[in-house]
Amino acid sequence: MAANNMEELVSLCKRRGFIFQSGEIYGGLQGLYDYGPLGVELKNNLKKAWWSSMVYERDDVEGLDASILTKPEVLQHSGHEDTFTDPLVDCKACKSRWRADHIEADGACPKCSSKKLTEPRPFNLMFKTNLGPVDDGTSFAYLRPETAQQIFTNFKNILDSTSKSLPFGIAQIGKAFRNEVTPRNFIFRVREFEQMELEFFVNKGTDEKWHEYWVDERLLWWEQQGVPRNRLKKLDVKPGDLSHYSKKTIDIMYEFPHGLEELEGIANRTDFDLGSHTKNQSSLNIDASIKKNKASIAKLAAQDPETNEWSVPYVIEPSAGIERGLLAILNEAYTVEEVEGKKERTLLSLKPHLSPIKAAVIPLKRNNEEIVNIATQVKNSLQKLGLGRILLENTGNIGKSYRKHDEVGTPICITVDFDTLENKTITVRDRDSMSQTKINISESPELLKDLVRK
Amino acid sequence: MAANNMEELVSLCKRRGFIFQSGEIYGGLQGLYDYGPLGVELKNNLKKAWWSSMVYERDDVEGLDASILTKPEVLQHSGHEDTFTDPLVDCKACKSRWRADHIEADGACPKCSSKKLTEPRPFNLMFKTNLGPVDDGTSFAYLRPETAQQIFTNFKNILDSTSKSLPFGIAQIGKAFRNEVTPRNFIFRVREFEQMELEFFVNKGTDEKWHEYWVDERLLWWEQQGVPRNRLKKLDVKPGDLSHYSKKTIDIMYEFPHGLEELEGIANRTDFDLGSHTKNQSSLNIDASIKKNKASIAKLAAQDPETNEWSVPYVIEPSAGIERGLLAILNEAYTVEEVEGKKERTLLSLKPHLSPIKAAVIPLKRNNEEIVNIATQVKNSLQKLGLGRILLENTGNIGKSYRKHDEVGTPICITVDFDTLENKTITVRDRDSMSQTKINISESPELLKDLVRK
Repeated sequence: MAANNMEELVSLCKRRGFIFQSGEIYGGLQGLYDYGPLGVELKNNLKKAWWSSMVYERDDVEGLDASILTKPEVLQHSGHEDTFTDPLVDCKACKSRWRADHIEADGACPKCSSKKLTEPRPFNLMFKTNLGPVDDGTSFAYLRPETAQQIFTNFKNILDSTSKSLPFGIAQIGKAFRNEVTPRNFIFRVREFEQMELEFFVNKGTDEKWHEYWVDERLLWWEQQGVPRNRLKKLDVKPGDLSHYSKKTIDIMYEFPHGLEELEGIANRTDFDLGSHTKNQSSLNIDASIKKNKASIAKLAAQDPETNEWSVPYVIEPSAGIERGLLAILNEAYTVEEVEGKKERTLLSLKPHLSPIKAAVIPLKRNNEEIVNIATQVKNSLQKLGLGRILLENTGNIGKSYRKHDEVGTPICITVDFDTLENKTITVRDRDSMSQTKINISESPELLKDLVRK
Repeated sequence: MAANNMEELVSLCKRRGFIFQSGEIYGGLQGLYDYGPLGVELKNNLKKAWWSSMVYERDDVEGLDASILTKPEVLQHSGHEDTFTDPLVDCKACKSRWRADHIEADGACPKCSSKKLTEPRPFNLMFKTNLGPVDDGTSFAYLRPETAQQIFTNFKNILDSTSKSLPFGIAQIGKAFRNEVTPRNFIFRVREFEQMELEFFVNKGTDEKWHEYWVDERLLWWEQQGVPRNRLKKLDVKPGDLSHYSKKTIDIMYEFPHGLEELEGIANRTDFDLGSHTKNQSSLNIDASIKKNKASIAKLAAQDPETNEWSVPYVIEPSAGIERGLLAILNEAYTVEEVEGKKERTLLSLKPHLSPIKAAVIPLKRNNEEIVNIATQVKNSLQKLGLGRILLENTGNIGKSYRKHDEVGTPICITVDFDTLENKTITVRDRDSMSQTKINISESPELLKDLVRK
């Protein structure tokens, strides 16, 4: 299993319509990607799996979908204006700019080899844009660098409109943007990406237990998406490497084609976030080291139903990047295998709930009206189950269709042939085992439901 | 039906957790909104309904999900850099800036009443942001002002990876951004919004028929979302008012609380778009008046399978705004009605497939473990159907729960009581009729499926 290298995945993604470089016809734009017909389905299926497990299957999590453009005050008080930086170095000779850790060992410019370099200076990774018609630098918004902050700023709105009590969480899926100096490794490090973040609010003192709980939950969830436990490592982030808000962070690491890197981080953010964004900070007995906030108009705290006392909840944050998830899932699912009697086949053994296409319905003859009509009926009846995309694959070439659907991860191909006209049987061909079974048309909905929902 | 005014909808949306102003705790940000626990479900359900009808239920449409950050060349060649502008006027006295059509009738500044105003100058509505570490104005991207353009720039990628032939479409749902000078009317005119756009590629000569086809399709679709035909008007945009790319546009107009305005536009964009973005323009016999493109490296044309000749397809574009759709749907669903024996109730008669919560399961007694356990089982078994969010509503107050779920549009409430313990019956209360029916627990999955999928 797994690809031999990143190029194999990039090639499959382009060829089959999963992922294209953005603006490709004009030379492309670094660190930006477009998701094609299969990529958009795979991505949406992954989001759906996360949302189901986080919001639908629990009774203690609510959803949110906040704006990307973010008021500067939010990212001032979160600490991002001060700390969300990379150290950069300017070459005084050729005027190029570099990340300090990318400078050659002898202290020379990677472009012109000059040693006339400035000291490293912090470069903020947030994208900014002007808001409104007057561009005088006073009215702007940031493109959010993470989805988490608006979960915190909406804490009171959500508490007031749902009457939740601790412990409870707020989940969000959405785009975030980082002006990475050197985007690289395909969709691993990009400038525009999507996050799936849960902020889980708990009483102080229970935070360490909840942190462990969420690490275990997330490992299990990745396993259900096709990334087995033995391919994941837990990294206990060293105290010196922790983010400014974190008391403890466990990174779930995965062996990507380019190396072992973070797939998801689960942080114990203490009461730093709500404490930073709340009004009346001094009355709230906040543990974290926070800056004074004179701008906030909302008390971001929870009342104990028994003592009626107010306190600022601690936050446990499982934060996953969708693109990294897709890359890990694609990598795990990818195999090139030898097939007896034939050369080889490329196989994408995606979990059926993630497969972009749930079933391909293939008429044996593309010009036989009766066969095509029945195939269309089968397609429509399976489509109505609401399980995802069903494709009518009317190319008239069964072998080619099988190869294509092996490669894009379609769990089953259903062939409608002359037998179907006679006795209503269809042939179901399994992607992984390549076995073929004849069943009655009427059995196909249950078969597909069992496959996708198991 | 319908709200008396926008305030009623704004109030409901805030109170019940549909929509909050973005950055509210820091004074809010004009023209930007966050979607709360119910808003995110409603919005996702509307997107799902569109995607199903456009991609899943058809065999001639493929999906796409492209990046928001867009290479400037794309929006140069689309015409946006030149034409996507509002005329603005500066007040020389107080330095404020205004849209030309907002200047007082006597030609005076709305702020300081000075008549020292500049001539109107075009102000581009696109947001820009710097890309990469060097901020010298040469390296930037636009936040896309519409999703359509990347459908055109990916035309060849999608054609190559799916082997589609004309007529076929590419559908996309995603965020777009416009630096509106005066965002207003709640979520109607905002700076960050979502579009559902289909670009349907057809042979020249068949374009007018397809245009009519899509107008009819879209009217029907809105009806299925709860906006009846008699509340929609077709506006044939006058030739002088057409966008630069359009041969003909039909706007679907809806009587919003603030007036009759566009809900969706269906444009015949001719061969302008692919013609503008293609290489080798002069060899392709393009009808539209286009600018020379020396940058593109892709031929954006389709080959006739019989004659093998290449031609640039015409494009029919149904383009809908999600926020406007939500506003129309909420407005249509909203009623305050007198209820016999009680004062009145607020009712949101959403189509069940759009309802944020499909069913609320309410234990009669919040502290009766047996009843709560069965309610949890009912919730979980209905949740597994994959129809959307099912809520366990354990407040212990049935009347209050009914009122809440009427107001947020939950089609049914299911009460688990002492009868359930005895004979497995549950009470199903219908939102619209308020009728209550006893059924067996085992009947509830079919009932819910029929309700949501009908």
